Amino acid sequence: MRKTIDRILEPETIAVVGASTDPSKRGHQAIKTLQEGGFEGTVYPVNPSAETIRGLSVCSSISEIPEPVDLALIVVPKQVVPSVLEECRDIDVAGAVVIAVGFGETGDEGEELEEDIIHIARQNNVRLVGPNTSGLINVHEGANLVGADNVPAGELGLLCQSGNLAIALFTEAAALEGVGFSHYVGVGNEADLQFHEYLPYFADNDKADAIVCYVEGLADGRAFLQEAHETVPETPIVVCKSGRSAVGKQSANSHTGSLAGDAAVADAVFSQAGVISVDRSDELLAVSDALASQPPMDDANIAILADGGGHATLAADALAARDLSVPELEAGTKDRLREVLPDAASVRNPVDVAGGTDDDPSVFADCAEALFDDPNVDGVLLSGLFGGYGIRFTDDLEPIEKAAARDIVTFAEDTDTPLVVQSAYESADPEVHTILRESDVPVYESLDLSVACLSALAEYGTHLKTTDERDSFNLEEGERTIDPAEATNGTLTEYDAKKVLDQYDAPVTPYELVETPMEAKRAAVEFDAPVAMKAVSPDIVHKTEADAVALEVTEDADDVFQDLVENARTYDPQARIDGVLVSPMRTDGIEVIVGATSDEQFGPVVMFGLGGVFVEVFEDVAFRAAPLSKSDARSMIEEIDAQPLLNGTRGGSSVDQEALVDVLCTVSDLVVDNPVVEEVDLNPVLAAEDGVEILDASILLSNESQTTTHTMESENEVISDGGDNE
Amino acid sequence: MRKTIDRILEPETIAVVGASTDPSKRGHQAIKTLQEGGFEGTVYPVNPSAETIRGLSVCSSISEIPEPVDLALIVVPKQVVPSVLEECRDIDVAGAVVIAVGFGETGDEGEELEEDIIHIARQNNVRLVGPNTSGLINVHEGANLVGADNVPAGELGLLCQSGNLAIALFTEAAALEGVGFSHYVGVGNEADLQFHEYLPYFADNDKADAIVCYVEGLADGRAFLQEAHETVPETPIVVCKSGRSAVGKQSANSHTGSLAGDAAVADAVFSQAGVISVDRSDELLAVSDALASQPPMDDANIAILADGGGHATLAADALAARDLSVPELEAGTKDRLREVLPDAASVRNPVDVAGGTDDDPSVFADCAEALFDDPNVDGVLLSGLFGGYGIRFTDDLEPIEKAAARDIVTFAEDTDTPLVVQSAYESADPEVHTILRESDVPVYESLDLSVACLSALAEYGTHLKTTDERDSFNLEEGERTIDPAEATNGTLTEYDAKKVLDQYDAPVTPYELVETPMEAKRAAVEFDAPVAMKAVSPDIVHKTEADAVALEVTEDADDVFQDLVENARTYDPQARIDGVLVSPMRTDGIEVIVGATSDEQFGPVVMFGLGGVFVEVFEDVAFRAAPLSKSDARSMIEEIDAQPLLNGTRGGSSVDQEALVDVLCTVSDLVVDNPVVEEVDLNPVLAAEDGVEILDASILLSNESQTTTHTMESENEVISDGGDNE
Repeated sequence: MRKTIDRILEPETIAVVGASTDPSKRGHQAIKTLQEGGFEGTVYPVNPSAETIRGLSVCSSISEIPEPVDLALIVVPKQVVPSVLEECRDIDVAGAVVIAVGFGETGDEGEELEEDIIHIARQNNVRLVGPNTSGLINVHEGANLVGADNVPAGELGLLCQSGNLAIALFTEAAALEGVGFSHYVGVGNEADLQFHEYLPYFADNDKADAIVCYVEGLADGRAFLQEAHETVPETPIVVCKSGRSAVGKQSANSHTGSLAGDAAVADAVFSQAGVISVDRSDELLAVSDALASQPPMDDANIAILADGGGHATLAADALAARDLSVPELEAGTKDRLREVLPDAASVRNPVDVAGGTDDDPSVFADCAEALFDDPNVDGVLLSGLFGGYGIRFTDDLEPIEKAAARDIVTFAEDTDTPLVVQSAYESADPEVHTILRESDVPVYESLDLSVACLSALAEYGTHLKTTDERDSFNLEEGERTIDPAEATNGTLTEYDAKKVLDQYDAPVTPYELVETPMEAKRAAVEFDAPVAMKAVSPDIVHKTEADAVALEVTEDADDVFQDLVENARTYDPQARIDGVLVSPMRTDGIEVIVGATSDEQFGPVVMFGLGGVFVEVFEDVAFRAAPLSKSDARSMIEEIDAQPLLNGTRGGSSVDQEALVDVLCTVSDLVVDNPVVEEVDLNPVLAAEDGVEILDASILLSNESQTTTHTMESENEVISDGGDNE
Repeated sequence: MRKTIDRILEPETIAVVGASTDPSKRGHQAIKTLQEGGFEGTVYPVNPSAETIRGLSVCSSISEIPEPVDLALIVVPKQVVPSVLEECRDIDVAGAVVIAVGFGETGDEGEELEEDIIHIARQNNVRLVGPNTSGLINVHEGANLVGADNVPAGELGLLCQSGNLAIALFTEAAALEGVGFSHYVGVGNEADLQFHEYLPYFADNDKADAIVCYVEGLADGRAFLQEAHETVPETPIVVCKSGRSAVGKQSANSHTGSLAGDAAVADAVFSQAGVISVDRSDELLAVSDALASQPPMDDANIAILADGGGHATLAADALAARDLSVPELEAGTKDRLREVLPDAASVRNPVDVAGGTDDDPSVFADCAEALFDDPNVDGVLLSGLFGGYGIRFTDDLEPIEKAAARDIVTFAEDTDTPLVVQSAYESADPEVHTILRESDVPVYESLDLSVACLSALAEYGTHLKTTDERDSFNLEEGERTIDPAEATNGTLTEYDAKKVLDQYDAPVTPYELVETPMEAKRAAVEFDAPVAMKAVSPDIVHKTEADAVALEVTEDADDVFQDLVENARTYDPQARIDGVLVSPMRTDGIEVIVGATSDEQFGPVVMFGLGGVFVEVFEDVAFRAAPLSKSDARSMIEEIDAQPLLNGTRGGSSVDQEALVDVLCTVSDLVVDNPVVEEVDLNPVLAAEDGVEILDASILLSNESQTTTHTMESENEVISDGGDNE
């Protein structure tokens, strides 16, 4: 018995529901495309009134098809889709591609219709692709349900939320040699089958060498992270996520009706799962093809081999702009280069052959061999005019150049080191480039695309080295540590939030909730004043605004107690006041913020940044999806621009970064254990050489919990309602 | 009498010195290229032994040529170049292109040879192009001294410091329709003729529609700024400056021997002069062509017209990434769009036709017309599949699409609004695109290049609006305010630096230099202690290190005086101590830094940033070339990332930014008046709501001045030595 997803993506029997005798109709063209595209399975046209279409006998209903149907292409109007799916009740239909628009992407009425078809499909065990999709193609099998006839065959699996973008990618690939697709899935509205459900199919390396995703919004971002995490070690995934800008988001909304999340969060969590994310659509195809065809790099050290100082310098700049390194070469490498190059050449990286190849391009191969052999080199970028020597100088050079290309490819393969070629003659399409491309070497006119390819190979290789450190992105709820019933207005008081943190042995500054002036005075003495004092009320969220905070209290803590309570009462006469929180004053250290938020697409994510203006003005923060591994937490601290401050740049000493790692992991545990948490804000956390302390904490619960606590529903219901990101 | 530069760039008589009968030699090929490329002037081969070459009679020396020579191409070995130039003594040779390498780019010996040829050339009134150049081409006149035969004719003037990069640009342009060159100058080592000297020629709009510069280093960056400033209002200039990264710089050095400056400074001063600078070489040709062919934009508001939500969203993201806006459309525009588009379309910007053009691409023209008419729209980006409807659907659509293209071009021209087309079918080269390109509309497959074009048009247009605010970048030295003889070790003491600032009425915190403990006590009282006290010694630069600073002194200023002097003596027993500087303590306000430095390429530049970590860790600073206009100074303050802090983000009020503008302009005046100044550092300057105060100041003089003051040379000599950037 074949798996459902295999039957959908490698269909042997296809029903075309809404088949037509009219050659201008989609229901006719689809059949024509299947017949002419070499599809060897069985095609069943379905139409209540026709008898034969394009030589095939027609079934009047899908239910009349005499064998199990792997995939039904449904091209009927949206109103008719439910009845077609109803007709699948008593037969075996694995999947149905619903082309029609006017569902969830259009508003309330469409959403209702979408709910309907999902319901019927599930009842009848039919998985849906779409609706609002251009279709699905298995290129190698000729199972083309789109009608696009220009899809070059190759090794890329494409999951795409825009039909026109798919056409653009097909056209772009067709203009390159050796770049093509194994599959195309227009995932559409993800009403039933969602992005992540296609990934396991491709994790099998025979299906595709890389998965290309154009995403407007993920219906279940958390599941995508989890599946991607498992797929990536086998098959690289490249994502272009649109809606990065506010305007783009607006447009993405009106397009598929899915919610585009924050670009910073998406970039961070994709990277965490090993997904390569490109922020410019121009790079999507090139980067995907490089990952599909070239070995990943262990590290980011690139040797540049250029014919001319101009190209050498520009290549070095372009690599540096993407944080790739241009390492020193070994002395032996330089000696080998010196042997074959003229005196004017530069044999340090970037290597400039300085005319040394003008008469004899085979020198390129000698140089490349030396570079591939250098242990400092993880990848090679050949930049300039290679492939154009026969055009630029004399025809005699072409065979020499071709032989050099063959040699270079062999050296690269022998050392398992990736090679990318940037050539000004790419548009002239010389045979030299064909030799390179037939050996899977990317060749681009664009320096930027060439460097983007190397950058992705470095990112992918780095991920493969560290991927063992994490089990999964699944949220396995632990023992709950928060009782939503205790929260008022969905917010825990600072006191309650700190009690929760205590359960995780988090380094909270000592605190005591006092209820009388005398207790305050005693606590101040015990804490060895100066102390900080704050009125605690479930009804007052903005304590400073209420003038209910006193810092640096050295004496008369009893009077201060009374002032604070009085101020709180003045601010809100109805406010319940639990008492005053007393803590010793802390000032030494660097203020950092550790927080968490529930992302609409990816669920709980943890945030780290330096306090004050660093967050507010520079937005210098790092995100990761919970659960965090320790290495996730370390990478967050390393990632922020202000990181040098934590290392003691301004004359101070380095703060205890491992203690910060622990706090980040605690917040991660807290949000995983308690799906009801919407936001955590530990601000400030004071980080010093000898440890860190959490000075203030707030925990906000999700709206669901607020509603339910207000109406006094049981805690269990609250928890099960709140966990919409599990 | 024609101008020398006109004779060089539009030569009527060309001498080829080193002409050869051997067809494989450059001295033969050059003549062949001139003959076959349609050059209608006179060519004189020069060779001591041949009689005729390619049918032309040969002169045995350049001095034997019977008429004035506009341009001599010198292809002899480097050692022979001086004697060829000697032979120009008694004849009229306007310019000579020296191809040979091995001059200033190679080291001391080469530099000497370069000095020699400059000397001889100047004596004989010959201007030099190169050496170390691939040559020079006037494309329209067939005056091709390079031998490259693939140079498409067009309207771009190319000044280039890499021959291979020029070949790459020629090849790239040849693959596009309608993009080409009027001139190519390989500026080489700039030994004599420098980058800026070619600009005035192109300022005449008939010569070229845009100037394209590939720069590794500018021999005289200041002169380039000045000439660019005057050229840009007539003819836009685009610069790609390599050597941005540390590695790139290294490589640029070994290539042309010129010193690549700091990328941040270069970007800032280019922009100040109205030069469009591209940081990726991929963009150089596209951006130049857009500026040459499309009208500049008054502002940065772009209407997107896309056939598909995917392209609409990606285009919006790409525009946002370059700070271009996607404005609301007028209600009337939306109504017009609604009339011609289906219900599923989005008529707010970005406009998504949502299939409304599939059957009838003329709808594109209707939509475009509405967008061009909208007063909120400064430019239009058409993105998606336009030009491919005949390919994608049926051939019948091609004539409709072509008519639409013609209409769109007409609407664009009528409203003087730029249009850029991004199309997935660019590589298929449909006639629709030819129509667009023939009307100068850029068409690219790359979304990024398309957006780069619009971004450059916005930047150029914005500059044209503000260009009147500055007269020039010339450094007109005013009255000198610094006497280098007073500086020790090239540094002014804080006291002396503040005295200099006083001459400009700069807002320095009150200060007094006291020489006795009693004076210190009195001063502290007069300044209404607390005060800051610092020992002043020309021999102690690092006062804090010497423990010679006391802050917040409230009492016993006499004792503090003695402590500071003692500490200074302990630190350096030989140090001369001028006394102690007393100032009232200031703490209210935001710390900013105002500085200046003498850039190796561009001369004096002024810097602004927030103090402390903002400069040290985030490197969040703005540069401009002095002299600053007030609007330059304002733009520096607006440019830094931390700018919101000056507006009172954190609950404070906005600081007095006009007072900051004055301080920036003062520093600008100071460095322009005193070419001997190498660095100015006002740090901190405290900026508050009611004004700013300079708390500390240091002024460093150039090495030349240090040497000369040490040897007690006269002040006049010092000044004339120091002003190497005038």
